[in-house]
Amino acid sequence: MNKLNGIAASDGIAISKAFLLVEPDLSFELGKNSDPEAEVTRLEDAISVSSTEIEQIKAKAAESLSEEEAAVFDAHLSILLDPEMKNAFVDKIKEQSYDAQSAVRETADMFITMFKNMEDNPYMQERAADIKDVTDRVIAHLLGVQMPDLSTVDEEVVVLGYDLTPSDTAQLDKRYVKGFATDIGGRTSHSAIMSRSLEIPAVVGTKDVSKSAEAGDLVIIDGLEGDVIINPDEETVKAYEEKQADFLAKKAEWAQLVNAESKTADGETFELVANIGTPKDLEGANDNGAEGIGLYRTEFLYMDSDQMPTEEEQFEAYKTVLEDMGERPVVVRTMDIGGDKNLPYLPLPEEMNPFLGYRAIRIGLHQPELLRTQLRALLRASVYGKLRIMFPMISNLAEFRQAKALVEEEKAKLVDDGVPVADDIQIGIMIEIPAAAVLADQFAKEVDFFSIGTNDLIQYTMAADRMNEHVSYLYQPYNPSVLRLIKSVIDASHKEGKWTGMCGEVAGDQTAVPLLVGMGLDEFSMSASSILKTRSLMSKLNKSEMESLVNKALTECTTSDEVANLVHDTVGDIIEG
Amino acid sequence: MNKLNGIAASDGIAISKAFLLVEPDLSFELGKNSDPEAEVTRLEDAISVSSTEIEQIKAKAAESLSEEEAAVFDAHLSILLDPEMKNAFVDKIKEQSYDAQSAVRETADMFITMFKNMEDNPYMQERAADIKDVTDRVIAHLLGVQMPDLSTVDEEVVVLGYDLTPSDTAQLDKRYVKGFATDIGGRTSHSAIMSRSLEIPAVVGTKDVSKSAEAGDLVIIDGLEGDVIINPDEETVKAYEEKQADFLAKKAEWAQLVNAESKTADGETFELVANIGTPKDLEGANDNGAEGIGLYRTEFLYMDSDQMPTEEEQFEAYKTVLEDMGERPVVVRTMDIGGDKNLPYLPLPEEMNPFLGYRAIRIGLHQPELLRTQLRALLRASVYGKLRIMFPMISNLAEFRQAKALVEEEKAKLVDDGVPVADDIQIGIMIEIPAAAVLADQFAKEVDFFSIGTNDLIQYTMAADRMNEHVSYLYQPYNPSVLRLIKSVIDASHKEGKWTGMCGEVAGDQTAVPLLVGMGLDEFSMSASSILKTRSLMSKLNKSEMESLVNKALTECTTSDEVANLVHDTVGDIIEG
Repeated sequence: MNKLNGIAASDGIAISKAFLLVEPDLSFELGKNSDPEAEVTRLEDAISVSSTEIEQIKAKAAESLSEEEAAVFDAHLSILLDPEMKNAFVDKIKEQSYDAQSAVRETADMFITMFKNMEDNPYMQERAADIKDVTDRVIAHLLGVQMPDLSTVDEEVVVLGYDLTPSDTAQLDKRYVKGFATDIGGRTSHSAIMSRSLEIPAVVGTKDVSKSAEAGDLVIIDGLEGDVIINPDEETVKAYEEKQADFLAKKAEWAQLVNAESKTADGETFELVANIGTPKDLEGANDNGAEGIGLYRTEFLYMDSDQMPTEEEQFEAYKTVLEDMGERPVVVRTMDIGGDKNLPYLPLPEEMNPFLGYRAIRIGLHQPELLRTQLRALLRASVYGKLRIMFPMISNLAEFRQAKALVEEEKAKLVDDGVPVADDIQIGIMIEIPAAAVLADQFAKEVDFFSIGTNDLIQYTMAADRMNEHVSYLYQPYNPSVLRLIKSVIDASHKEGKWTGMCGEVAGDQTAVPLLVGMGLDEFSMSASSILKTRSLMSKLNKSEMESLVNKALTECTTSDEVANLVHDTVGDIIEG
Repeated sequence: MNKLNGIAASDGIAISKAFLLVEPDLSFELGKNSDPEAEVTRLEDAISVSSTEIEQIKAKAAESLSEEEAAVFDAHLSILLDPEMKNAFVDKIKEQSYDAQSAVRETADMFITMFKNMEDNPYMQERAADIKDVTDRVIAHLLGVQMPDLSTVDEEVVVLGYDLTPSDTAQLDKRYVKGFATDIGGRTSHSAIMSRSLEIPAVVGTKDVSKSAEAGDLVIIDGLEGDVIINPDEETVKAYEEKQADFLAKKAEWAQLVNAESKTADGETFELVANIGTPKDLEGANDNGAEGIGLYRTEFLYMDSDQMPTEEEQFEAYKTVLEDMGERPVVVRTMDIGGDKNLPYLPLPEEMNPFLGYRAIRIGLHQPELLRTQLRALLRASVYGKLRIMFPMISNLAEFRQAKALVEEEKAKLVDDGVPVADDIQIGIMIEIPAAAVLADQFAKEVDFFSIGTNDLIQYTMAADRMNEHVSYLYQPYNPSVLRLIKSVIDASHKEGKWTGMCGEVAGDQTAVPLLVGMGLDEFSMSASSILKTRSLMSKLNKSEMESLVNKALTECTTSDEVANLVHDTVGDIIEG
């Protein structure tokens, strides 16, 4: 029996046989060819098959899961189909008489070595990894070796791997895959977000789970505590079967709340709403009792497409969501591209620090024709439901005024053309940049609402990239500085009769919820799968007591750990359920 | 006559003939060789000469200017001497019978094209540019073409170019180069910082000055307003000669203040101190009447070296500075490496957003042996002057407590060993992360002082990379959010009887100084060349009036522009002198 600890990524317990997602053996002796034309044909066939496979994985990913990841496959395809790359392979075959696999391996190794050795370049390792992924697939075909393939799984398993890539999760069948654990990653990494969206128990960041088990070993994945147990003894299995039953019972209890109000024990009500990426996510939101949509991430409309989505395509998507929600509010965030989200058809500058770069509203205000198209689609859709328009990455009032003016201008044009537009559209901003949080009192006089984006707000406030494992310990949602900013934003909105929501990871964090209730956050927007659990927790808290808790946290605590300990000392029993 | 406008980078007026720093013509027809061994020899000779040249430029840069830039040349050398790169050249010569220049050009073009085409990679353009720089030099030698060479200048000129690279500035002789103007860059770009440190009038970011003039044209560079005038008429020349005389007279007036106190018209005193990078910068600090050192950037000790500097080497540097300053305080910032400052001998992770990454105190706390060595050197040097130790990039109290504990531990060990250590060493932190600014009241109870690093504080508060031209308009020193944070930090320190300094670009910004005086900032640390000008400005301000100005700015202004306008409406006459 061997117990590993990692980061709890998705709730639940899985007990099943291990499926190891490991690299196949692609070693071979370098060889020469006697018929270069034949080798070039073999190479072209392998490239063609590999490209078809990547296209299929990309299509499957876009259909079965969040469509965000498609861009990764485009990068892989562009390497695979780069004529310079192919010329380099062919040169090796024709001029150095290598066989096809040796030509690919030698060329790839040269690029990978060069890229890895180039100092002063943070992207090289990643680019080297992309080249390795793509050329490994080509080499596997040339060698006739099978690539590890989750789509062949036809019995219940838990998957253990170094990481789950988008191609892996695209192939993952929920009927058979009961849980997974990975060596790397954090709570906001791709694999962790996927596990919650699929509602599969998961533990990430275990460091070496993929090397700690054999295929077929019995494995327990505890997504509640972040534990992985390999080859547990009978007693342990029994204990976890009970824990699993408890969790499922709790889940069944939460399910009772699907039509309930979101109300504290002392009768204060809140709004519990869902984050969605596409109209397909509405089903999950409805199944989990969402009282509206707190964040519709429209960038997937852009990322899914080969070209800028037309006004008509956007209109249809927005209309679908607004109609489905009916009287329930829908907060639509305008295009949040740039940063780590690139569009193949929109050239963006290469940046040293993309998270501090040309992104979101900055693009919308500098290329206003893009934003205007989106705004017209939104305004036209507004009559089908209760629309709230939200601008991302606002750092100063001048930006908000410019963005709002675009809305007014497009609205006036539509009205002039006799197109009906709702007259109760709220216009608000994300609070995700410290400057906007600090000036919330001034913003509150001009906006209709705030929605706090904690993922970015925390990363900028702490100056730590949350995706960077070397500083991810500084992603501290309970740091008193972050809590002060959140509280000051909520207070500022209330002073002007406006409301504040939250659409970052923290809104569904069970340690944070008691604090946010105490601060009087109006709207909590989260993954649909977290709504019922949060509604249950809320129903057991007293708002008045949570106000005292907040007061204590902000006056007595100096670190994130102190705050977390205070919350757990005060309401730990309720959180544990 | 043609007038261009750019960004005023360094004060003063230059009127002189243009020296164009332009690319030489390196075009040629691709050719074949009949003696591959001879071509390889030519290639090796050209690489060897190029490498010697780069080594010389590197050495000259290190000696004559800030030593920070040496790392760039290391990157160039590593490309030039990369065996994979050379093999690729030789392959083209031997297997495709190209002559040496064609082999280099073809190979370089392949890499450059690949790098530029790779989507999703912000560093590629930069890397492609590095490869182009290096291979152009090799090709120039193979073609017998002269590279543009500032060291050949032997008469008074102003230099016009696309940008001034570190190799350019390394070759620049102040006796002859009276000013420069570039197409790209902003106030904190390399060329702008260099121009201030050399006290040469400069305008950057003109977009196309390098294409707007011919060699030998008469050019006026107005580093006060950011204007460049090409082929001015006589009247204009006369007007600028007067402006130049006025400026020189003003400079002479400022020079009177070298031994004066830094005092406002109503008698409040402040501390005006210098930023330095190495002991060599002490001369400039003394010549300009610095009342101490507000920021000793010790990272140059690390960046100048081929290996981690020893405790002894560091001790000697710190002792030199402390002894030179005597009774005047010296604030030493511990190693601020990482971000955009890499060390060839210290492997750091490749990061997607290095400004939000593993840097400064984060490295020091995770590899404490590095920080301990520096602290021991500092503690041993402390008896030679008035030492203040400052930790950079502190985001939370736990970090400060850990760092301070390291100081205490090393001090105890030294005292045990009988080594004398001063007992009046102050320990403080940089305030450059929003989280620390927001919690300044809590920090103020534990630190001895704050120094506000505005460059980073502004970039994190506004979530905009100040080095990124696409978002540099968001580097807003007067944004009310930034001013609120600065004021709250100063107030928090005073409440606990502590002091606050500022060591970012803003401390010497003439529009900001009136506000900072009003807020009661205790210590202003800046480029030595800005001290006397600031002392003069300060002497004409009334602190009590500046307090009202701050109050007005923070209650009535909502944008950076409104604040700047308010300051200029109120004290513009004094600022203009």
